[in-house]
Amino acid sequence: MSNVEHNALLTRLALAEEVARAGGAAALRWFEQRDSLVVETKHDLQDVVSRADREVEQMIGQRMRENFPDDGFLGEEYGLQAGSSGYTWVVDPIDGTSPFLNGMPNWCVSVAVLHEGVPVIGVIFAPTYQECYVAALGHGATLNGKRLQVDPSRTLQNHVTGFGANSYVSPEKVGEILAALLAAGGNFIRIGSGALMLAWVAAGRVVGYYEPYMHAWDCLAGYCLVKEAGGWYHPFDTTGERLLKGAQVLAVAPGAEADLKRIAGL
Amino acid sequence: MSNVEHNALLTRLALAEEVARAGGAAALRWFEQRDSLVVETKHDLQDVVSRADREVEQMIGQRMRENFPDDGFLGEEYGLQAGSSGYTWVVDPIDGTSPFLNGMPNWCVSVAVLHEGVPVIGVIFAPTYQECYVAALGHGATLNGKRLQVDPSRTLQNHVTGFGANSYVSPEKVGEILAALLAAGGNFIRIGSGALMLAWVAAGRVVGYYEPYMHAWDCLAGYCLVKEAGGWYHPFDTTGERLLKGAQVLAVAPGAEADLKRIAGL
Repeated sequence: MSNVEHNALLTRLALAEEVARAGGAAALRWFEQRDSLVVETKHDLQDVVSRADREVEQMIGQRMRENFPDDGFLGEEYGLQAGSSGYTWVVDPIDGTSPFLNGMPNWCVSVAVLHEGVPVIGVIFAPTYQECYVAALGHGATLNGKRLQVDPSRTLQNHVTGFGANSYVSPEKVGEILAALLAAGGNFIRIGSGALMLAWVAAGRVVGYYEPYMHAWDCLAGYCLVKEAGGWYHPFDTTGERLLKGAQVLAVAPGAEADLKRIAGL
Repeated sequence: MSNVEHNALLTRLALAEEVARAGGAAALRWFEQRDSLVVETKHDLQDVVSRADREVEQMIGQRMRENFPDDGFLGEEYGLQAGSSGYTWVVDPIDGTSPFLNGMPNWCVSVAVLHEGVPVIGVIFAPTYQECYVAALGHGATLNGKRLQVDPSRTLQNHVTGFGANSYVSPEKVGEILAALLAAGGNFIRIGSGALMLAWVAAGRVVGYYEPYMHAWDCLAGYCLVKEAGGWYHPFDTTGERLLKGAQVLAVAPGAEADLKRIAGL
Protein backbone atom coordinates (compact mmCIF):
# COMPACT_ATOMS: atom_id res chain seq x y z
CA MET A 1 0.00 0.00 0.00
CA SER A 2 1.43 3.39 -1.04
CA ASN A 3 1.45 6.40 1.28
CA VAL A 4 -1.36 7.93 -0.75
CA GLU A 5 -3.49 4.79 -0.41
CA HIS A 6 -2.63 4.59 3.26
CA ASN A 7 -3.81 8.16 3.82
CA ALA A 8 -6.93 7.51 1.73
CA LEU A 9 -7.74 4.61 4.04
CA LEU A 10 -7.06 6.41 7.32
CA THR A 11 -9.01 9.57 6.47
CA ARG A 12 -12.01 7.41 5.50
CA LEU A 13 -11.59 5.36 8.68
CA ALA A 14 -11.82 8.51 10.82
CA LEU A 15 -14.95 9.61 8.97
CA ALA A 16 -16.51 6.15 9.13
CA GLU A 17 -16.22 6.13 12.91
CA GLU A 18 -17.50 9.70 13.15
CA VAL A 19 -20.61 9.01 11.05
CA ALA A 20 -21.35 5.68 12.74
CA ARG A 21 -21.28 7.40 16.13
CA ALA A 22 -23.32 10.40 14.92
CA GLY A 23 -25.83 8.14 13.15
CA GLY A 24 -26.08 5.98 16.24
CA ALA A 25 -26.71 8.97 18.47
CA ALA A 26 -29.53 10.11 16.16
CA ALA A 27 -31.00 6.59 16.05
CA LEU A 28 -30.83 6.37 19.84
CA ARG A 29 -32.94 9.54 20.14
CA TRP A 30 -35.59 7.92 17.89
CA PHE A 31 -35.34 4.68 19.90
CA GLU A 32 -35.92 6.38 23.22
CA GLN A 33 -38.87 8.38 21.92
CA ARG A 34 -40.42 5.80 19.61
CA ASP A 35 -43.58 5.21 21.66
CA SER A 36 -44.39 8.90 22.05
CA LEU A 37 -43.58 9.49 18.36
CA VAL A 38 -46.17 6.88 17.42
CA VAL A 39 -48.76 8.85 19.37
CA GLU A 40 -47.62 12.27 18.13
CA THR A 41 -47.30 11.42 14.45
CA LYS A 42 -50.25 8.99 14.40
CA HIS A 43 -48.00 6.64 12.44
CA ASP A 44 -47.44 3.07 13.48
CA LEU A 45 -44.24 1.82 15.06
CA GLN A 46 -42.95 0.42 11.75
CA ASP A 47 -43.32 3.86 10.10
CA VAL A 48 -41.48 5.56 12.93
CA VAL A 49 -38.61 3.09 12.60
CA SER A 50 -38.53 3.53 8.82
CA ARG A 51 -38.26 7.30 9.27
CA ALA A 52 -35.39 6.83 11.72
CA ASP A 53 -33.69 4.47 9.25
CA ARG A 54 -33.95 6.97 6.38
CA GLU A 55 -32.84 9.94 8.46
CA VAL A 56 -29.72 8.16 9.69
CA GLU A 57 -28.81 6.89 6.21
CA GLN A 58 -29.24 10.36 4.69
CA MET A 59 -27.13 11.93 7.42
CA ILE A 60 -24.32 9.44 6.83
CA GLY A 61 -24.56 9.74 3.04
CA GLN A 62 -24.42 13.52 3.18
CA ARG A 63 -21.33 13.60 5.43
CA MET A 64 -19.66 11.07 3.14
CA ARG A 65 -20.38 13.12 -0.02
CA GLU A 66 -19.14 16.35 1.58
CA ASN A 67 -15.81 14.70 2.28
CA PHE A 68 -15.44 12.17 -0.54
CA PRO A 69 -17.69 13.26 -3.43
CA ASP A 70 -16.20 10.66 -5.80
CA ASP A 71 -16.88 7.68 -3.53
CA GLY A 72 -19.83 5.38 -4.18
CA PHE A 73 -22.56 4.83 -1.61
CA LEU A 74 -24.82 1.86 -0.98
CA GLY A 75 -27.41 2.10 1.78
CA GLU A 76 -30.15 -0.28 2.79
CA GLU A 77 -32.86 2.37 2.30
CA TYR A 78 -31.85 4.29 -0.85
CA GLY A 79 -29.81 1.77 -2.84
CA LEU A 80 -26.57 2.30 -4.77
CA GLN A 81 -25.08 5.55 -6.00
CA ALA A 82 -21.98 4.60 -7.99
CA GLY A 83 -18.70 6.50 -7.53
CA SER A 84 -15.45 6.86 -9.46
CA SER A 85 -12.75 6.77 -6.77
CA GLY A 86 -12.67 2.99 -6.33
CA TYR A 87 -14.14 3.40 -2.83
CA THR A 88 -17.74 2.51 -1.98
CA TRP A 89 -19.42 3.06 1.39
CA VAL A 90 -21.90 0.37 2.40
CA VAL A 91 -24.23 1.40 5.20
CA ASP A 92 -26.97 -0.16 7.26
CA PRO A 93 -28.38 2.75 9.27
CA ILE A 94 -30.18 0.48 11.78
CA ASP A 95 -29.33 -3.20 11.73
CA GLY A 96 -31.72 -5.09 13.98
CA THR A 97 -34.97 -3.34 13.11
CA SER A 98 -37.04 -5.82 15.10
CA PRO A 99 -35.10 -5.28 18.36
CA PHE A 100 -35.22 -1.51 17.72
CA LEU A 101 -38.97 -1.64 17.10
CA ASN A 102 -39.67 -3.67 20.23
CA GLY A 103 -37.40 -1.91 22.68
CA MET A 104 -34.61 -4.46 22.81
CA PRO A 105 -31.03 -3.17 23.04
CA ASN A 106 -29.48 -5.36 20.34
CA TRP A 107 -29.24 -3.11 17.29
CA CYS A 108 -26.46 -1.10 15.68
CA VAL A 109 -25.25 1.17 12.89
CA SER A 110 -22.99 -0.59 10.39
CA VAL A 111 -20.58 1.28 8.11
CA ALA A 112 -18.23 -0.51 5.71
CA VAL A 113 -15.94 0.98 3.09
CA LEU A 114 -14.94 -1.15 0.12
CA HIS A 115 -11.84 -0.51 -1.98
CA GLU A 116 -12.02 -2.20 -5.36
CA GLY A 117 -14.68 -4.45 -3.89
CA VAL A 118 -12.75 -5.50 -0.77
CA PRO A 119 -14.03 -4.41 2.68
CA VAL A 120 -11.11 -2.33 3.96
CA ILE A 121 -12.99 -0.51 6.75
CA GLY A 122 -15.61 -1.81 9.15
CA VAL A 123 -17.25 0.24 11.90
CA ILE A 124 -20.16 -1.04 13.98
CA PHE A 125 -21.60 1.20 16.66
CA ALA A 126 -24.15 -0.13 19.18
CA PRO A 127 -25.64 2.99 20.80
CA THR A 128 -27.49 1.31 23.70
CA TYR A 129 -24.19 -0.24 24.79
CA GLN A 130 -22.04 2.73 23.77
CA GLU A 131 -19.76 0.22 22.11
CA CYS A 132 -17.88 1.12 18.94
CA TYR A 133 -16.15 -1.63 16.97
CA VAL A 134 -13.57 -0.32 14.47
CA ALA A 135 -11.34 -2.11 11.96
CA ALA A 136 -9.24 -1.22 8.92
CA LEU A 137 -7.42 -3.65 6.66
CA GLY A 138 -3.95 -4.30 8.05
CA HIS A 139 -4.59 -2.10 11.10
CA GLY A 140 -6.37 -4.55 13.40
CA ALA A 141 -9.74 -4.36 15.11
CA THR A 142 -10.71 -2.57 18.30
CA LEU A 143 -13.69 -2.21 20.65
CA ASN A 144 -13.79 1.22 22.27
CA GLY A 145 -10.08 1.46 21.57
CA LYS A 146 -9.13 -1.94 23.01
CA ARG A 147 -7.50 -4.38 20.59
CA LEU A 148 -9.58 -7.43 19.62
CA GLN A 149 -8.09 -10.84 18.83
CA VAL A 150 -10.09 -14.05 18.53
CA ASP A 151 -9.01 -16.93 20.79
CA PRO A 152 -7.81 -19.92 18.71
CA SER A 153 -8.64 -22.32 21.56
CA ARG A 154 -12.39 -21.67 21.30
CA THR A 155 -14.39 -24.18 19.26
CA LEU A 156 -17.97 -24.86 18.22
CA GLN A 157 -18.19 -27.16 21.25
CA ASN A 158 -16.70 -24.96 23.97
CA HIS A 159 -18.31 -21.70 22.88
CA VAL A 160 -21.59 -20.31 21.53
CA THR A 161 -22.39 -19.63 17.86
CA GLY A 162 -24.49 -16.74 16.60
CA PHE A 163 -27.25 -17.47 14.11
CA GLY A 164 -29.71 -15.49 12.06
CA ALA A 165 -32.24 -16.11 9.30
CA ASN A 166 -34.93 -14.19 7.48
CA SER A 167 -37.95 -15.12 5.38
CA TYR A 168 -35.73 -16.04 2.40
CA VAL A 169 -34.96 -19.26 4.29
CA SER A 170 -37.66 -21.90 4.87
CA PRO A 171 -38.71 -22.85 8.42
CA GLU A 172 -37.63 -26.44 7.75
CA LYS A 173 -34.17 -25.32 6.65
CA VAL A 174 -33.73 -23.17 9.78
CA GLY A 175 -34.77 -26.14 11.93
CA GLU A 176 -32.30 -28.42 10.13
CA ILE A 177 -29.38 -26.00 10.49
CA LEU A 178 -29.96 -25.46 14.22
CA ALA A 179 -30.48 -29.19 14.87
CA ALA A 180 -27.19 -29.90 13.06
CA LEU A 181 -25.38 -27.23 15.10
CA LEU A 182 -26.69 -28.70 18.38
CA ALA A 183 -25.98 -32.27 17.25
CA ALA A 184 -22.36 -31.24 16.57
CA GLY A 185 -22.10 -30.26 20.25
CA GLY A 186 -22.58 -26.53 19.66
CA ASN A 187 -25.05 -24.06 21.02
CA PHE A 188 -26.52 -20.92 19.51
CA ILE A 189 -27.80 -17.49 20.32
CA ARG A 190 -29.71 -15.06 18.15
CA ILE A 191 -29.97 -11.46 19.26
CA GLY A 192 -31.75 -10.03 16.22
CA SER A 193 -28.90 -8.03 14.66
CA GLY A 194 -26.58 -9.87 12.29
CA ALA A 195 -24.12 -6.97 12.05
CA LEU A 196 -23.81 -6.79 15.83
CA MET A 197 -23.32 -10.55 16.10
CA LEU A 198 -20.50 -10.31 13.53
CA ALA A 199 -18.89 -7.65 15.74
CA TRP A 200 -19.35 -10.05 18.66
CA VAL A 201 -17.40 -12.70 16.69
CA ALA A 202 -14.51 -10.22 16.49
CA ALA A 203 -14.88 -9.55 20.23
CA GLY A 204 -14.85 -13.28 21.06
CA ARG A 205 -18.33 -13.17 22.60
CA VAL A 206 -19.47 -15.78 20.08
CA VAL A 207 -17.20 -18.16 18.19
CA GLY A 208 -18.82 -17.55 14.82
CA TYR A 209 -21.88 -16.24 13.03
CA TYR A 210 -23.87 -17.95 10.33
CA GLU A 211 -26.83 -16.67 8.37
CA PRO A 212 -27.96 -18.35 5.15
CA TYR A 213 -28.93 -15.10 3.40
CA MET A 214 -27.77 -11.56 4.15
CA HIS A 215 -27.19 -8.38 2.21
CA ALA A 216 -23.93 -6.47 1.78
CA TRP A 217 -24.95 -3.70 4.20
CA ASP A 218 -25.59 -6.30 6.94
CA CYS A 219 -22.27 -8.09 6.76
CA LEU A 220 -19.36 -6.22 5.14
CA ALA A 221 -18.38 -4.07 8.14
CA GLY A 222 -18.53 -7.16 10.35
CA TYR A 223 -16.43 -9.12 7.87
CA CYS A 224 -13.64 -6.54 8.06
CA LEU A 225 -13.81 -6.65 11.87
CA VAL A 226 -13.63 -10.44 12.02
CA LYS A 227 -10.73 -10.65 9.59
CA GLU A 228 -8.74 -8.02 11.48
CA ALA A 229 -9.40 -9.85 14.76
CA GLY A 230 -7.89 -13.03 13.29
CA GLY A 231 -11.00 -14.81 12.05
CA TRP A 232 -12.11 -16.05 8.65
CA TYR A 233 -15.04 -14.98 6.51
CA HIS A 234 -16.80 -16.49 3.55
CA PRO A 235 -16.18 -14.13 0.62
CA PHE A 236 -19.08 -11.92 -0.46
CA ASP A 237 -19.26 -11.24 -4.20
CA THR A 238 -19.15 -7.43 -4.57
CA THR A 239 -18.68 -7.24 -8.35
CA GLY A 240 -21.18 -5.05 -10.20
CA GLU A 241 -24.82 -5.81 -9.51
CA ARG A 242 -23.85 -8.77 -7.29
CA LEU A 243 -23.19 -6.25 -4.53
CA LEU A 244 -26.96 -5.71 -4.35
CA LYS A 245 -27.85 -9.40 -4.02
CA GLY A 246 -28.02 -11.42 -0.85
CA ALA A 247 -25.60 -14.24 -0.10
CA GLN A 248 -24.66 -16.83 2.49
CA VAL A 249 -22.75 -15.22 5.35
CA LEU A 250 -20.30 -16.97 7.62
CA ALA A 251 -17.57 -15.50 9.84
CA VAL A 252 -15.75 -17.59 12.39
CA ALA A 253 -12.75 -18.00 14.69
CA PRO A 254 -10.26 -20.62 13.47
CA GLY A 255 -11.16 -23.31 16.02
CA ALA A 256 -14.77 -23.53 14.79
CA GLU A 257 -14.12 -22.91 11.09
CA ALA A 258 -14.25 -26.52 9.87
CA ASP A 259 -17.36 -27.41 11.90
CA LEU A 260 -19.29 -24.31 10.94
CA LYS A 261 -18.38 -24.60 7.25
CA ARG A 262 -19.65 -28.17 7.28
CA ILE A 263 -22.95 -27.16 8.92
CA ALA A 264 -23.35 -24.35 6.37
CA GLY A 265 -22.56 -26.75 3.51
CA LEU A 266 -19.53 -24.71 2.39
CA MET B 1 -55.18 -10.76 51.96
CA SER B 2 -55.00 -9.64 55.63
CA ASN B 3 -52.94 -6.67 56.76
CA VAL B 4 -50.42 -9.02 58.30
CA GLU B 5 -50.07 -10.94 55.05
CA HIS B 6 -49.86 -7.70 53.12
CA ASN B 7 -47.02 -6.44 55.30
CA ALA B 8 -45.31 -9.83 55.07
CA LEU B 9 -45.41 -9.48 51.29
CA LEU B 10 -44.22 -5.89 51.10
CA THR B 11 -41.32 -6.27 53.55
CA ARG B 12 -40.12 -9.28 51.56
CA LEU B 13 -40.57 -7.35 48.32
CA ALA B 14 -38.29 -4.58 49.56
CA LEU B 15 -35.65 -7.09 50.60
CA ALA B 16 -35.96 -9.04 47.33
CA GLU B 17 -35.17 -5.91 45.33
CA GLU B 18 -32.34 -4.97 47.69
CA VAL B 19 -30.64 -8.38 47.45
CA ALA B 20 -31.15 -8.66 43.68
CA ARG B 21 -29.46 -5.29 43.22
CA ALA B 22 -26.66 -6.07 45.70
CA GLY B 23 -26.13 -9.52 44.18
CA GLY B 24 -26.10 -8.02 40.72
CA ALA B 25 -23.54 -5.41 41.71
CA ALA B 26 -21.28 -8.15 43.09
CA ALA B 27 -21.76 -10.28 39.98
CA LEU B 28 -20.95 -7.29 37.76
CA ARG B 29 -17.60 -6.85 39.54
CA TRP B 30 -16.77 -10.50 38.77
CA PHE B 31 -17.98 -10.04 35.18
CA GLU B 32 -15.78 -7.04 34.53
CA GLN B 33 -12.70 -8.68 36.04
CA ARG B 34 -13.25 -12.23 34.84
CA ASP B 35 -10.33 -12.33 32.42
CA SER B 36 -7.80 -10.99 34.91
CA LEU B 37 -9.22 -13.30 37.61
CA VAL B 38 -8.52 -16.28 35.35
CA VAL B 39 -4.88 -15.20 35.15
CA GLU B 40 -4.55 -14.31 38.85
CA THR B 41 -6.23 -17.40 40.28
CA LYS B 42 -4.92 -19.79 37.60
CA HIS B 43 -8.46 -21.17 37.40
CA ASP B 44 -10.33 -21.45 34.15
CA LEU B 45 -13.20 -19.17 33.15
CA GLN B 46 -15.83 -21.71 34.21
CA ASP B 47 -14.33 -21.87 37.73
CA VAL B 48 -14.31 -18.10 38.03
CA VAL B 49 -17.97 -17.94 37.03
CA SER B 50 -18.86 -20.74 39.44
CA ARG B 51 -17.17 -18.82 42.27
CA ALA B 52 -19.14 -15.70 41.34
CA ASP B 53 -22.36 -17.75 41.30
CA ARG B 54 -21.73 -19.20 44.75
CA GLU B 55 -20.66 -15.88 46.28
CA VAL B 56 -23.80 -14.11 45.05
CA GLU B 57 -26.10 -16.91 46.20
CA GLN B 58 -24.50 -17.00 49.66
CA MET B 59 -24.78 -13.24 49.99
CA ILE B 60 -28.48 -13.31 49.10
CA GLY B 61 -29.18 -16.32 51.34
CA GLN B 62 -27.44 -14.71 54.30
CA ARG B 63 -29.37 -11.43 53.98
CA MET B 64 -32.61 -13.41 53.67
CA ARG B 65 -31.90 -15.47 56.82
CA GLU B 66 -30.95 -12.37 58.84
CA ASN B 67 -34.36 -10.86 58.06
CA PHE B 68 -36.64 -13.88 57.70
CA PRO B 69 -35.02 -16.82 59.54
CA ASP B 70 -38.14 -18.98 59.16
CA ASP B 71 -38.36 -18.65 55.38
CA GLY B 72 -37.17 -21.45 53.12
CA PHE B 73 -34.45 -20.92 50.52
CA LEU B 74 -33.80 -22.64 47.20
CA GLY B 75 -30.77 -21.59 45.20
CA GLU B 76 -29.32 -23.02 42.01
CA GLU B 77 -25.94 -23.67 43.64
CA TYR B 78 -26.72 -24.95 47.15
CA GLY B 79 -30.17 -26.50 46.80
CA LEU B 80 -33.15 -26.30 49.17
CA GLN B 81 -33.19 -25.34 52.83
CA ALA B 82 -36.77 -25.79 54.02
CA GLY B 83 -38.49 -23.13 56.16
CA SER B 84 -41.57 -22.99 58.38
CA SER B 85 -43.14 -19.60 57.56
CA GLY B 86 -44.87 -20.66 54.35
CA TYR B 87 -42.50 -18.44 52.35
CA THR B 88 -39.69 -19.82 50.19
CA TRP B 89 -37.10 -17.74 48.35
CA VAL B 90 -36.03 -19.15 44.98
CA VAL B 91 -32.83 -17.63 43.62
CA ASP B 92 -30.73 -17.92 40.52
CA PRO B 93 -27.61 -15.89 41.35
CA ILE B 94 -26.49 -15.62 37.70
CA ASP B 95 -28.97 -16.67 35.02
CA GLY B 96 -27.25 -16.73 31.64
CA THR B 97 -23.94 -18.29 32.62
CA SER B 98 -22.86 -18.65 29.01
CA PRO B 99 -23.33 -14.94 28.19
CA PHE B 100 -21.62 -14.06 31.50
CA LEU B 101 -18.71 -16.38 30.70
CA ASN B 102 -18.25 -15.03 27.21
CA GLY B 103 -18.61 -11.33 27.87
CA MET B 104 -22.14 -10.87 26.53
CA PRO B 105 -24.45 -8.48 28.41
CA ASN B 106 -27.51 -10.76 28.57
CA TRP B 107 -27.48 -12.18 32.08
CA CYS B 108 -29.29 -11.35 35.32
CA VAL B 109 -29.97 -12.13 38.96
CA SER B 110 -33.40 -13.71 39.54
CA VAL B 111 -35.14 -13.65 42.94
CA ALA B 112 -38.61 -15.12 43.48
CA VAL B 113 -40.54 -15.54 46.71
CA LEU B 114 -43.20 -18.24 46.92
CA HIS B 115 -46.06 -18.19 49.43
CA GLU B 116 -47.64 -21.61 49.89
CA GLY B 117 -46.07 -22.56 46.57
CA VAL B 118 -47.33 -19.58 44.54
CA PRO B 119 -44.81 -17.03 43.17
CA VAL B 120 -45.91 -13.83 44.92
CA ILE B 121 -42.72 -11.80 44.32
CA GLY B 122 -40.49 -11.64 41.27
CA VAL B 123 -37.40 -9.46 40.94
CA ILE B 124 -35.00 -9.69 38.02
CA PHE B 125 -32.00 -7.39 37.92
CA ALA B 126 -29.83 -7.12 34.79
CA PRO B 127 -26.66 -5.36 35.97
CA THR B 128 -25.11 -4.59 32.57
CA TYR B 129 -28.30 -2.74 31.62
CA GLN B 130 -28.96 -1.39 35.13
CA GLU B 131 -32.53 -2.58 34.66
CA CYS B 132 -34.52 -3.85 37.62
CA TYR B 133 -37.84 -5.64 37.00
CA VAL B 134 -40.05 -5.90 40.10
CA ALA B 135 -43.44 -7.50 40.67
CA ALA B 136 -45.61 -8.58 43.60
CA LEU B 137 -48.88 -10.43 43.38
CA GLY B 138 -51.73 -7.93 43.07
CA HIS B 139 -49.32 -4.98 42.97
CA GLY B 140 -48.37 -4.93 39.27
CA ALA B 141 -44.99 -5.11 37.58
CA THR B 142 -42.45 -2.35 36.99
CA LEU B 143 -39.17 -1.78 35.18
CA ASN B 144 -37.00 0.78 36.97
CA GLY B 145 -40.18 2.05 38.57
CA LYS B 146 -42.19 2.35 35.34
CA ARG B 147 -45.40 0.28 35.19
CA LEU B 148 -45.37 -2.64 32.74
CA GLN B 149 -48.44 -3.85 30.86
CA VAL B 150 -48.38 -6.28 27.94
CA ASP B 151 -50.05 -5.09 24.73
CA PRO B 152 -53.03 -7.30 23.82
CA SER B 153 -52.69 -6.38 20.14
CA ARG B 154 -49.32 -8.11 19.78
CA THR B 155 -49.39 -11.62 18.35
CA LEU B 156 -47.02 -14.41 17.41
CA GLN B 157 -47.10 -13.00 13.87
CA ASN B 158 -46.56 -9.29 14.53
CA HIS B 159 -43.96 -9.67 17.29
CA VAL B 160 -40.94 -11.77 18.22
CA THR B 161 -40.94 -14.79 20.55
CA GLY B 162 -38.14 -15.68 22.94
CA PHE B 163 -36.84 -19.25 22.98
CA GLY B 164 -34.41 -21.27 24.99
CA ALA B 165 -33.33 -24.89 25.33
CA ASN B 166 -30.67 -26.87 27.11
CA SER B 167 -29.17 -30.31 26.71
CA TYR B 168 -32.26 -31.98 28.21
CA VAL B 169 -33.92 -31.37 24.83
CA SER B 170 -32.77 -33.21 21.70
CA PRO B 171 -31.38 -31.26 18.73
CA GLU B 172 -34.17 -32.65 16.53
CA LYS B 173 -36.82 -31.45 18.97
CA VAL B 174 -35.32 -27.94 19.07
CA GLY B 175 -35.27 -27.87 15.26
CA GLU B 176 -38.91 -28.99 15.11
CA ILE B 177 -40.11 -26.38 17.62
CA LEU B 178 -38.36 -23.53 15.85
CA ALA B 179 -39.52 -24.68 12.41
CA ALA B 180 -43.11 -24.80 13.73
CA LEU B 181 -42.80 -21.32 15.21
CA LEU B 182 -41.51 -19.91 11.91
CA ALA B 183 -44.11 -21.83 9.88
CA ALA B 184 -46.83 -20.24 12.05
CA GLY B 185 -45.57 -16.83 10.90
CA GLY B 186 -43.57 -16.09 14.04
CA ASN B 187 -39.95 -15.27 14.58
CA PHE B 188 -37.64 -15.96 17.50
CA ILE B 189 -34.73 -14.60 19.41
CA ARG B 190 -32.57 -16.27 22.01
CA ILE B 191 -30.32 -14.16 24.18
CA GLY B 192 -28.96 -16.85 26.49
CA SER B 193 -30.83 -15.98 29.71
CA GLY B 194 -34.30 -17.45 30.17
CA ALA B 195 -35.03 -15.38 33.27
CA LEU B 196 -34.19 -12.16 31.45
CA MET B 197 -36.32 -13.15 28.46
CA LEU B 198 -39.25 -13.76 30.80
CA ALA B 199 -38.73 -10.23 32.14
CA TRP B 200 -38.70 -9.05 28.52
CA VAL B 201 -42.13 -10.69 28.04
CA ALA B 202 -43.42 -8.54 30.90
CA ALA B 203 -41.77 -5.50 29.29
CA GLY B 204 -43.35 -6.26 25.87
CA ARG B 205 -39.96 -6.64 24.18
CA VAL B 206 -40.94 -10.17 23.17
CA VAL B 207 -44.49 -11.51 22.96
CA GLY B 208 -43.74 -14.72 24.81
CA TYR B 209 -41.06 -17.08 26.01
CA TYR B 210 -40.93 -20.81 25.59
CA GLU B 211 -38.38 -23.29 26.88
CA PRO B 212 -39.12 -27.02 27.00
CA TYR B 213 -37.24 -27.63 30.27
CA MET B 214 -36.31 -25.12 32.97
CA HIS B 215 -35.81 -25.15 36.71
CA ALA B 216 -37.77 -23.22 39.35
CA TRP B 217 -34.94 -20.73 39.94
CA ASP B 218 -34.89 -19.86 36.22
CA CYS B 219 -38.57 -19.12 35.79
CA LEU B 220 -40.55 -18.30 38.96
CA ALA B 221 -39.53 -14.63 39.29
CA GLY B 222 -40.26 -14.13 35.59
CA TYR B 223 -43.63 -15.85 35.96
CA CYS B 224 -44.70 -13.39 38.66
CA LEU B 225 -43.57 -10.49 36.46
CA VAL B 226 -45.47 -11.74 33.41
CA LYS B 227 -48.66 -12.36 35.37
CA GLU B 228 -48.57 -8.92 36.95
CA ALA B 229 -47.98 -7.33 33.53
CA GLY B 230 -51.15 -8.99 32.23
CA GLY B 231 -49.75 -12.14 30.64
CA TRP B 232 -50.35 -15.83 31.22
CA TYR B 233 -47.94 -18.51 32.44
CA HIS B 234 -48.01 -22.26 32.38
CA PRO B 235 -48.20 -23.40 36.05
CA PHE B 236 -45.01 -24.77 37.58
CA ASP B 237 -45.54 -27.55 40.12
CA THR B 238 -43.94 -26.35 43.35
CA THR B 239 -45.27 -29.04 45.70
CA GLY B 240 -42.63 -30.85 47.76
CA GLU B 241 -39.76 -32.33 45.80
CA ARG B 242 -41.37 -31.25 42.51
CA LEU B 243 -39.98 -27.80 43.17
CA LEU B 244 -36.53 -29.24 42.49
CA LYS B 245 -37.44 -30.81 39.14
CA GLY B 246 -37.40 -29.15 35.75
CA ALA B 247 -40.55 -28.48 33.77
CA GLN B 248 -41.87 -26.98 30.55
CA VAL B 249 -41.93 -23.19 30.79
CA LEU B 250 -44.19 -20.88 28.82
CA ALA B 251 -45.18 -17.27 29.51
CA VAL B 252 -46.99 -15.19 26.95
CA ALA B 253 -49.07 -12.11 26.19
CA PRO B 254 -52.74 -12.90 25.47
CA GLY B 255 -52.58 -12.33 21.69
CA ALA B 256 -50.01 -15.09 21.21
CA GLU B 257 -51.23 -17.48 23.89
CA ALA B 258 -53.18 -19.90 21.68
CA ASP B 259 -50.46 -20.11 19.01
CA LEU B 260 -47.62 -20.61 21.46
CA LYS B 261 -49.51 -23.20 23.51
CA ARG B 262 -50.15 -25.16 20.31
CA ILE B 263 -46.47 -25.03 19.32
CA ALA B 264 -45.49 -26.14 22.84
CA GLY B 265 -48.04 -28.98 22.71
CA LEU B 266 -49.94 -27.65 25.75
